[in-house]
Amino acid sequence: MRALRFNAPFDVVVVDAPDPMIVDPRDAIVRVAATCVCGSDLWPYRGDNPRDAGSAIGHECVGEVVEVGNDVRHISVGDFVVVPFLASCGHCLLCREGQVQSCTVAAEAGVFSTQGAQAEYVRTPLADGSLVVVPGGRPAENLVPHLLALSDVMGTGYHAAVSARVRPGDTVAVVGDGAVGLSGVLAARLLGAERIIALSRHADRQALAQSFGATHIVPERGEDAVAAVREITDGVGADAVLECVGTEESMATAFDAARPGATVGFVGVPHGVVAPIGRMFRHNIGLAGGVAPTRVYTPDLVARVLAGEITPGDVFDRRVSLEELPSGYAEMNERRAIKVWATP
Amino acid sequence: MRALRFNAPFDVVVVDAPDPMIVDPRDAIVRVAATCVCGSDLWPYRGDNPRDAGSAIGHECVGEVVEVGNDVRHISVGDFVVVPFLASCGHCLLCREGQVQSCTVAAEAGVFSTQGAQAEYVRTPLADGSLVVVPGGRPAENLVPHLLALSDVMGTGYHAAVSARVRPGDTVAVVGDGAVGLSGVLAARLLGAERIIALSRHADRQALAQSFGATHIVPERGEDAVAAVREITDGVGADAVLECVGTEESMATAFDAARPGATVGFVGVPHGVVAPIGRMFRHNIGLAGGVAPTRVYTPDLVARVLAGEITPGDVFDRRVSLEELPSGYAEMNERRAIKVWATP
Repeated sequence: MRALRFNAPFDVVVVDAPDPMIVDPRDAIVRVAATCVCGSDLWPYRGDNPRDAGSAIGHECVGEVVEVGNDVRHISVGDFVVVPFLASCGHCLLCREGQVQSCTVAAEAGVFSTQGAQAEYVRTPLADGSLVVVPGGRPAENLVPHLLALSDVMGTGYHAAVSARVRPGDTVAVVGDGAVGLSGVLAARLLGAERIIALSRHADRQALAQSFGATHIVPERGEDAVAAVREITDGVGADAVLECVGTEESMATAFDAARPGATVGFVGVPHGVVAPIGRMFRHNIGLAGGVAPTRVYTPDLVARVLAGEITPGDVFDRRVSLEELPSGYAEMNERRAIKVWATP
Repeated sequence: MRALRFNAPFDVVVVDAPDPMIVDPRDAIVRVAATCVCGSDLWPYRGDNPRDAGSAIGHECVGEVVEVGNDVRHISVGDFVVVPFLASCGHCLLCREGQVQSCTVAAEAGVFSTQGAQAEYVRTPLADGSLVVVPGGRPAENLVPHLLALSDVMGTGYHAAVSARVRPGDTVAVVGDGAVGLSGVLAARLLGAERIIALSRHADRQALAQSFGATHIVPERGEDAVAAVREITDGVGADAVLECVGTEESMATAFDAARPGATVGFVGVPHGVVAPIGRMFRHNIGLAGGVAPTRVYTPDLVARVLAGEITPGDVFDRRVSLEELPSGYAEMNERRAIKVWATP
């Protein structure tokens, strides 16, 4: 098959690679119908995170199941599935609590996320617990990107909103106008937010935020952004804040934009972040979130996509072929694209 | 009047002092029926926090209103009141949200907590919003300590449990066996916890924790305590954790004892605490709490005390006269007493 490989920072290539095989009886093999590049794929791409030369990469895809291991009971060859980026068994104590990111079976098996989804085929561990079958089989082509978005980015944005405890009528601030932040805007709308303030300085992202439900755009950054949010919120700050970046600066902005009693929902993988414990304590501002257990939200979001209620795949503003995916990395890295998807 | 004054670390004295006067038309003067020593009073006592020599001290009391300012509408001379340690207006945007610790009117007025409650009389700012009238006037003597506990310690323990989102059926771990932690045990029971694990190594505190509803006692500390909590919780940790100390070690224990998806409710004023953001992110463990808006909980807790449903004043294991209060400080500081109360 053809598959992307990471060689070194700024060097990803599409190569001929062996087709994946079942290695554990709980595995399934998925023929990838669509895959995409995650913001976290850019970390090794930029050299921020170490990664082995020659390693498979990619953890977001949808596609058709073409083979299942002997212990797979609930997933069948021919199913069209959303592959959540995290593998989880679905029946351990923590999965039953909805904490699939901490699945004890996955931890024992040494698996965390699907790897190598940027390829024609991918092996998915713990298929029964992980994969989400799309009712009705392979969907219309126009729905594919919206289902693909449920593999990670939309579920992650949704988790930010759930973690920030967005309630109907709330005023919500969203820090970060990447694909996750934009998905967070959509999620806040789904949870009933009345006012959604998107912090974004780019016209294309502002427009997408508005189409997803943002009622206010704040193009400023840092202290000026905080002042703008306070201006909108009677001087006190937002009822809930979604932190969708993960840097020290974005976290500081998120906390400063939060009113006393608010919760900052964070899903941006923290890089050098220190929680401002003094401000949290004085003003009872909570911090919740983390690696998103998207599997928990996927069935509901699949139904909403199939019903035409949400179009989370609008975060994809660039479609390429698998062969062109290396240029897709470059475009995302240079912020010329919000999020790139590919069809093998 | 007679009143305690802080002179220097380990040097508090009872002196003749001028009676307090109304200085703002929203003030009330309360004749103190009972007062007590807070864990936070011990910080300047130990020299950990600077404090002016000769300053009045104490922020917990109950008593009878003897004078009100011209702008006080809802509190009357003769009312028997619980004085919450925080002053709040009760009507600003944040007070209406229950965030009385961040009251904007109190902030503008430059008042935070009542000061000088360890005295025969005390001036209480923003009386209308702050004071909680005990229905039926001066209560029976045996109820006084239980109402006094609502001034700070019980409301603070309750806030830890609310912040940790304790739900019916939960397994809750409580880190800290001071008066706040013990109150947290009682609060967890009120919120319906099924199993309450009290981390305590002192027999008297263990007994009190059990009388408040603790079902398990863990006398170990640090990693051993975490292992004991995990043993009780099928290896995953507690559904909710109350952090009632505020040190780096206690916070680490709290997070390690929390299962994925749990919230650590913290009310111990943080001293050198750093939130373990990596563990929080990986396992979706939240942090919430802070300065307790006890005023919000007080009316309900007063009703429960008057109904004989709870006896939060059991945390007081030493009663002294106002004149003996300096020795009460020493007893608490040396951990010979859990919490000392005094009647002028």
